[in-house]
Amino acid sequence: ERGRERRKHESVSLCPLNTGAATEQDMLCIFGTGDLGRSLGQRLLQTGYRVVYGSRRPQSCGLLPPGTQVHHEAAAQSARLVFICIHRENYDFLETLATQLKGKVLVDVSNNLKKNLYPEANAEYLQRLIPGAQVVKGFNTLSAWALQNGPSDANRQVYLCGNSAEAKQAVADVATKLGFTVLDRGSLSAARELEDFPLQLFPEWRLPMQLTIGLTAFFFIYVVIRDVIYAYVKDNKDISFRIMVSLANKVFPTVSLVMLSLCYLPGVIAAFLQLYRGTKYKRFPDWLDRWMLCRKQLGLVALALASLHVLYTLIIPIRYYVRYRLAANTISQIRENKTSPFDTTMAWRTDSYYSMGALGFGLYLLLGITSLPSVSNMLSWREFSFIQSKLGYLTLFVCTFHTYLYGWDMFLRPSYYKWYTLPNYMLSLVVPSAVLVLKLLLLLPCVDRTLTRIRQGWERSDPEHESKKSLLTSGYHTTDTNAL
Amino acid sequence: ERGRERRKHESVSLCPLNTGAATEQDMLCIFGTGDLGRSLGQRLLQTGYRVVYGSRRPQSCGLLPPGTQVHHEAAAQSARLVFICIHRENYDFLETLATQLKGKVLVDVSNNLKKNLYPEANAEYLQRLIPGAQVVKGFNTLSAWALQNGPSDANRQVYLCGNSAEAKQAVADVATKLGFTVLDRGSLSAARELEDFPLQLFPEWRLPMQLTIGLTAFFFIYVVIRDVIYAYVKDNKDISFRIMVSLANKVFPTVSLVMLSLCYLPGVIAAFLQLYRGTKYKRFPDWLDRWMLCRKQLGLVALALASLHVLYTLIIPIRYYVRYRLAANTISQIRENKTSPFDTTMAWRTDSYYSMGALGFGLYLLLGITSLPSVSNMLSWREFSFIQSKLGYLTLFVCTFHTYLYGWDMFLRPSYYKWYTLPNYMLSLVVPSAVLVLKLLLLLPCVDRTLTRIRQGWERSDPEHESKKSLLTSGYHTTDTNAL
Amino acid sequence: ERGRERRKHESVSLCPLNTGAATEQDMLCIFGTGDLGRSLGQRLLQTGYRVVYGSRRPQSCGLLPPGTQVHHEAAAQSARLVFICIHRENYDFLETLATQLKGKVLVDVSNNLKKNLYPEANAEYLQRLIPGAQVVKGFNTLSAWALQNGPSDANRQVYLCGNSAEAKQAVADVATKLGFTVLDRGSLSAARELEDFPLQLFPEWRLPMQLTIGLTAFFFIYVVIRDVIYAYVKDNKDISFRIMVSLANKVFPTVSLVMLSLCYLPGVIAAFLQLYRGTKYKRFPDWLDRWMLCRKQLGLVALALASLHVLYTLIIPIRYYVRYRLAANTISQIRENKTSPFDTTMAWRTDSYYSMGALGFGLYLLLGITSLPSVSNMLSWREFSFIQSKLGYLTLFVCTFHTYLYGWDMFLRPSYYKWYTLPNYMLSLVVPSAVLVLKLLLLLPCVDRTLTRIRQGWERSDPEHESKKSLLTSGYHTTDTNAL
Repeated sequence: ERGRERRKHESVSLCPLNTGAATEQDMLCIFGTGDLGRSLGQRLLQTGYRVVYGSRRPQSCGLLPPGTQVHHEAAAQSARLVFICIHRENYDFLETLATQLKGKVLVDVSNNLKKNLYPEANAEYLQRLIPGAQVVKGFNTLSAWALQNGPSDANRQVYLCGNSAEAKQAVADVATKLGFTVLDRGSLSAARELEDFPLQLFPEWRLPMQLTIGLTAFFFIYVVIRDVIYAYVKDNKDISFRIMVSLANKVFPTVSLVMLSLCYLPGVIAAFLQLYRGTKYKRFPDWLDRWMLCRKQLGLVALALASLHVLYTLIIPIRYYVRYRLAANTISQIRENKTSPFDTTMAWRTDSYYSMGALGFGLYLLLGITSLPSVSNMLSWREFSFIQSKLGYLTLFVCTFHTYLYGWDMFLRPSYYKWYTLPNYMLSLVVPSAVLVLKLLLLLPCVDRTLTRIRQGWERSDPEHESKKSLLTSGYHTTDTNAL
Repeated sequence: ERGRERRKHESVSLCPLNTGAATEQDMLCIFGTGDLGRSLGQRLLQTGYRVVYGSRRPQSCGLLPPGTQVHHEAAAQSARLVFICIHRENYDFLETLATQLKGKVLVDVSNNLKKNLYPEANAEYLQRLIPGAQVVKGFNTLSAWALQNGPSDANRQVYLCGNSAEAKQAVADVATKLGFTVLDRGSLSAARELEDFPLQLFPEWRLPMQLTIGLTAFFFIYVVIRDVIYAYVKDNKDISFRIMVSLANKVFPTVSLVMLSLCYLPGVIAAFLQLYRGTKYKRFPDWLDRWMLCRKQLGLVALALASLHVLYTLIIPIRYYVRYRLAANTISQIRENKTSPFDTTMAWRTDSYYSMGALGFGLYLLLGITSLPSVSNMLSWREFSFIQSKLGYLTLFVCTFHTYLYGWDMFLRPSYYKWYTLPNYMLSLVVPSAVLVLKLLLLLPCVDRTLTRIRQGWERSDPEHESKKSLLTSGYHTTDTNAL
Repeated sequence: ERGRERRKHESVSLCPLNTGAATEQDMLCIFGTGDLGRSLGQRLLQTGYRVVYGSRRPQSCGLLPPGTQVHHEAAAQSARLVFICIHRENYDFLETLATQLKGKVLVDVSNNLKKNLYPEANAEYLQRLIPGAQVVKGFNTLSAWALQNGPSDANRQVYLCGNSAEAKQAVADVATKLGFTVLDRGSLSAARELEDFPLQLFPEWRLPMQLTIGLTAFFFIYVVIRDVIYAYVKDNKDISFRIMVSLANKVFPTVSLVMLSLCYLPGVIAAFLQLYRGTKYKRFPDWLDRWMLCRKQLGLVALALASLHVLYTLIIPIRYYVRYRLAANTISQIRENKTSPFDTTMAWRTDSYYSMGALGFGLYLLLGITSLPSVSNMLSWREFSFIQSKLGYLTLFVCTFHTYLYGWDMFLRPSYYKWYTLPNYMLSLVVPSAVLVLKLLLLLPCVDRTLTRIRQGWERSDPEHESKKSLLTSGYHTTDTNAL
């Protein structure tokens, strides 16, 4: 405690500059010298703390600064805060240190390898082992890497939970000094939730991925039946080689367009729901809420599929099959001594089709880039909403138009309705067309005016509450911004 | 006030660990239960504050934690800080609470839907309504989303302004606890500026976008006249279908190259200005300053156009028009029984041309990626300057060379000067060639030496001030780094 | 000191809200009015500090707020902290201010233009000039830009070093107020290291770039000999024009695939080393450590080369050479009145080859995007490891398979072994095939189980230490995550 004594003395002469210095020179104790323990210790040392490692054989590990390892008992006594960076499997030995750990703040940093491996959270188990200590769960959502290199964008937040407010405050002070932002998650009963955090594997991507796989499988089987099997049954021709590129390049754009429109559908539904209810103060149904929360993921999957569509399209002219057919076409023209005349309409149509595709993909990419965290963070609320809403609908329109140009007069020709089924491009147009028509309805001046009023807090036909709602509103309404 | 009492008591025994704990348990009040009010409250609760919502009918809103809503009067009295998350239109009711709000710090979080909707800023209006309170404008530049999920890259800064330094400090303490960085913008007269922030729509993109639209329109009309109208007038041929892809693919690279060179022109002009003036201690003219500030935007627009140029080029071989012409060419060779010999120079030239294009685009992309905020933030000053300056000029050189290879000996053939006009590729070469020549001049050892001395603070022909300037310099000079 | 007086008085009535306010109103002094000094001053003013600039002729510089410039002597006396934003070349004049600077904290912010320009660090030189002051080195790793616009991702950390703990604490307080995270690098002897930081030019990219250049040069010469020189020597044909696109497009994918597999090789080697040693508590050899640290760079270079490969491949059908050969082929078919039959196997094979290439590139891009700092920061440890390890190996597999499909039965035909050398695609397959086989071995259940136990801290055949190792472990092991 000499250090603290000295600092207190200094603070007499250096008062205004010395705030927090007493805490900074505090001794902290770490149990466990694995990657995490070492990274944490290194960072604490760099930030100006003194650190001591608890160890059974203080001399045995060469990866630590010399002189920082002492026996567990001594280590526990030298500090008020002890970071427990040990596997839960080895907690039992801590029971023997119960006397030394009494009254200490124990920070449980542990994680498990799987969910639900144990009936109770590691931190709760620790508290049960050493009832005299104040256990705080925290720091476990950070990787050893984040600890060593300091906080970065999403590795900035440290979640804490524990039953003692003072203990949490003490740990929060250390986290703040290390540059992290602290979020208090309440009592120790939240420990389980914190321990499940690092084990999550893209929970917000599950629904969009399932949808993607489902739609892709459906459309793939659909085009295989309509193209490959139909050709085999009707003409006894084997064109199964077309699966690899031609059919894939039918499935990708179809699913991509459907998913892009599914990004914008929930926003439109929400708007009509608000119009119907005449208020924005009722919760949306759960399915709509969940749908709206995964719009960004839907959009990104749609972008990935659109990129594959572009790649597969650009590959076309180097394919053996395409080159063969072009040559065969030329040869047959010569042998039959016919010359097919140049078709200006055809040139206009196909060029427009490709041009719309290229522009649509460019806009698509723009939406994708602005949804990168570091870019979207730089946008003001209005800018983000402009890009995701206005530019988003423009993208949807251009891509839908691109698909209509692709179809052109195909819908007039009976030969395209093989086995009385619709070509897949028609199926892909249903949802986007509906979304665009509904959005157009919402843009009608009278509808738009009502919707804006509702979103500012106005409620229909509720005269006695007229004064209330005006107090419940703010300039922000998130339902309108369609996130990609 | 029981909470604070308790904490004070604890702090006797827990002194060094308990800094700031008293503030943390403070009660905060929020008026308004819209998206923003709820998000703010949720975040405050998570960070350890106690929160109370003011409401006219405390039971009517089911979106808030139970027990947090009380009547406005009670809410106002229970806290020293009141967040006003209400639309300005409903401020008037606050006048009735003037007694309870006296001496309180009111944080005006409101925004308007449009600029200049009201003659005075919302916060100034609030101060006029309740003269006894200390109004602080702030938090309004954050979205409800940023409040709920914590600070992220550019949503990290909270701007505050107000007439009372203590009130601002109290609000700053809360913002800091929430993980934000506080920037003091002075007295309440800055409120208007803060309220205009979230309404900005890409202000720094306005000039580059206007330039892009202007240049694109000019070159588009230029090539339509030279190609489509010329063919119609001279040969009575309708080749208007070429507008969609062929002509677009002439305009995109032309504008892209001009804009890329406009990125680097201001840096060169600035250098020559410094050489001419013999000092770096004079302000640049305003137009040059503004030009330099939008170099990044110019570069990104140029990159977008270059990407479209690449897409439109790769589309070429799948176009109907191109396939038709290639087949027609083969057919005519056979019918006329001629074989055009293989031209090695032609192969070298076109392959070099495509190769330079691909490399130039690769470098271009690299510049674009390093200008992403999260990437450029990881670079040291020297690394950023290396990429944006050295690699930038290399990109400009490769792209200019690509264009020269495209032209090849075209400038020798009179048929290309239709109606005595220059082909558009020649027009696009003027600025980049000039920039490259000027940059070469600046790299001459004698010029480079003088410029480096000037940028280190040396001033020409000013012998009596010789000693002064040496004190005015630092190792940083920002004019040399050409930002993409 | 009137300001502080006033604040102290206020704090009686405003106690809990006023923490830190006394420090905030402190006066700070800046010597040097260059870009850095001005930016620093501007930021300090915005954050609420009062700032005074030291100057020899207080009226001569028009770029500063009026009234902030005074003579050096007066400036030095008015503040406890003095920021020295002057070139080292001009430090000598500071000696004349030694009396006024006695007891002050001097923050040396200077940088040099080159490494090793002076025998001792600037800050140490400053300390020698003014022994009575407490010199702290710091803030020099920030650009003027970062100072003006506030901290951002990697410009968040301020490194400090100095011999006085109180002086460092005082500077750290200022840095924290400005929103930066402080890292203490120890005594003033670390100043040299801090001064070398901003002069670094991609130190972590040096090894990967050397490797890339070496491999590219080797394979380029290899294919030039095998293709161009062989054709010239054997058939006296000049096909040198193929260098620009065809040969480049052989070198890019070859080097890319080798480098991608070099990303994953060290992880595999490390795993086998741990299996052989039976412990994870021994350091890896230095070369392996260095190799593992540059995996991300290796992967990004591989991605850049893969992108060029894609661009060069998509360019193929617009090349003059390719069009000429296709037309010549058609013409010869007609003249010889032969029709080459359609080869379904060929169609399957080439389509699969292109399809794998497109999918592999898509996965590659995904790896690249998730390695963007702002994206990888949002991933949990498990998600990052899933993408970089599972998806990474999938990418390697798809790309290797793509190359095998390219080769097909080429290895059976003697004509491809020109001059008894292997085709370059075979060379490129050696390392990736080895990595994939070794990884498969590691995935065998028995091997995988042992490895997992070792990584959890288990040690083989060391019965007496059995109890120790269990205390040394944590749930984090970084060697398994292959970073792209």
